Amino acid sequence: MLCPRVVFITGANRGLGLEFVRQFLKLGNPPDHLFATCRDPERAEELKILKKEDDRIQIIKLDVTSQTDIDAAARQVEDRVGDRGLNLLINNAGMTRKRQYVGNLNRDHLLEQFDTNVIGPLLVTQSLMPLLLRAASLYNEPDSCNKAAIVNISSILGSIAENKSGGMYGYRPSKAAMNMVTKSLHEELKNKGILVAALHPGWVRTGIGGPEATLSPEESIKDCLNVLSKLSTEKSGCLLSNNGDKIEW
Amino acid sequence: MLCPRVVFITGANRGLGLEFVRQFLKLGNPPDHLFATCRDPERAEELKILKKEDDRIQIIKLDVTSQTDIDAAARQVEDRVGDRGLNLLINNAGMTRKRQYVGNLNRDHLLEQFDTNVIGPLLVTQSLMPLLLRAASLYNEPDSCNKAAIVNISSILGSIAENKSGGMYGYRPSKAAMNMVTKSLHEELKNKGILVAALHPGWVRTGIGGPEATLSPEESIKDCLNVLSKLSTEKSGCLLSNNGDKIEW
Repeated sequence: MLCPRVVFITGANRGLGLEFVRQFLKLGNPPDHLFATCRDPERAEELKILKKEDDRIQIIKLDVTSQTDIDAAARQVEDRVGDRGLNLLINNAGMTRKRQYVGNLNRDHLLEQFDTNVIGPLLVTQSLMPLLLRAASLYNEPDSCNKAAIVNISSILGSIAENKSGGMYGYRPSKAAMNMVTKSLHEELKNKGILVAALHPGWVRTGIGGPEATLSPEESIKDCLNVLSKLSTEKSGCLLSNNGDKIEW
Repeated sequence: MLCPRVVFITGANRGLGLEFVRQFLKLGNPPDHLFATCRDPERAEELKILKKEDDRIQIIKLDVTSQTDIDAAARQVEDRVGDRGLNLLINNAGMTRKRQYVGNLNRDHLLEQFDTNVIGPLLVTQSLMPLLLRAASLYNEPDSCNKAAIVNISSILGSIAENKSGGMYGYRPSKAAMNMVTKSLHEELKNKGILVAALHPGWVRTGIGGPEATLSPEESIKDCLNVLSKLSTEKSGCLLSNNGDKIEW
């Protein structure tokens, strides 16, 4: 059963991140602390409504491209959970640009996607690593998302093997890079009790997926939580589909 | 037989880039135009000596992180080769940082590696694309490096499947991203007569490979030219080892 006590989610103000928050709160045994982070808490209306109803949520300002924000967020988590550590980090915040074809590429738009989709999650992970390691050290049980895990919301569009249509010169490479980060973290942490996975949430009707996508956020996150509930050492270090299958790199 | 008429190489002042220049000049039928680019031509002593002996070489200033440099370089090639176009682009310039472990990562060092190893080669390719397409349109023969090709010098360290030791959080993801760029370009160009490949040059005694590496630059580039001489549509869109084998993504 999925029941991590302390959860941290980036990009939680809308789309998949917001839906993660909603469904975590509806678990049979919801987290004691759910850190819902977003760039602009002032404008995160849905999160604020959820927080009014449930004080397990703490809303934290976090632009993953700001080291100042990252450091401050890690301190807030440390202050709140102390020696319990962090059980589950979900690196969900991400972005894409339209019209990324050869002839229309520019450096700023490309850098922005690597910064937000790869470097941000990596630096957030770095800052929270002491808390993840602390949680991992407290549980004398098989590795799981209840104990300590890092889940990077990636995409099948980041699979080089599955790329049959080309294009998307910022988004695709940034997600391939995130997949590599996932694998490197897994190799570094596999003997320290922390699982690491990249997760393709399916094609979802969000700002990134667009209105034509096949899944609602509710359906996608239901699938994702199911995958997380079964995450184990066998699937750590992999890119997993929302149905739990491994996707080729 | 490898005999492209017009070749463009980045990072040609030292290491593998310089060795590419040397060995291209020694081919049975060397290129008519060999554009050897580097960040600081003033200090490219070996290139200047080679140029004195062989006026097929044109040295061009090109920092791949500068769009101004990229635009100017493309104009110089256009002015020089005119309607012949460009047959072979070798995106060789790249960099790495030492001590890239969790706890020691910072945004500027990570961004720098994505900028130099992924975005730079992609924007160089974009600027030279009209010349590559022109060359591809002139030859009514099977696709090859003599006709039109883009070769990205990548690394087995960019293979997610082969990553068994973790770490290198800037270099590995940047090369995985470059591999994705290679695949996307291949998908976009496969019906336009342009081959695209990522090439692992082996573990070479260069600034990046270090003094313990198994291959000299001479040995590595001899292997690489052999791979290029056999490059065909079957191997386009792949990451190839210096022995010509496909490496898993």
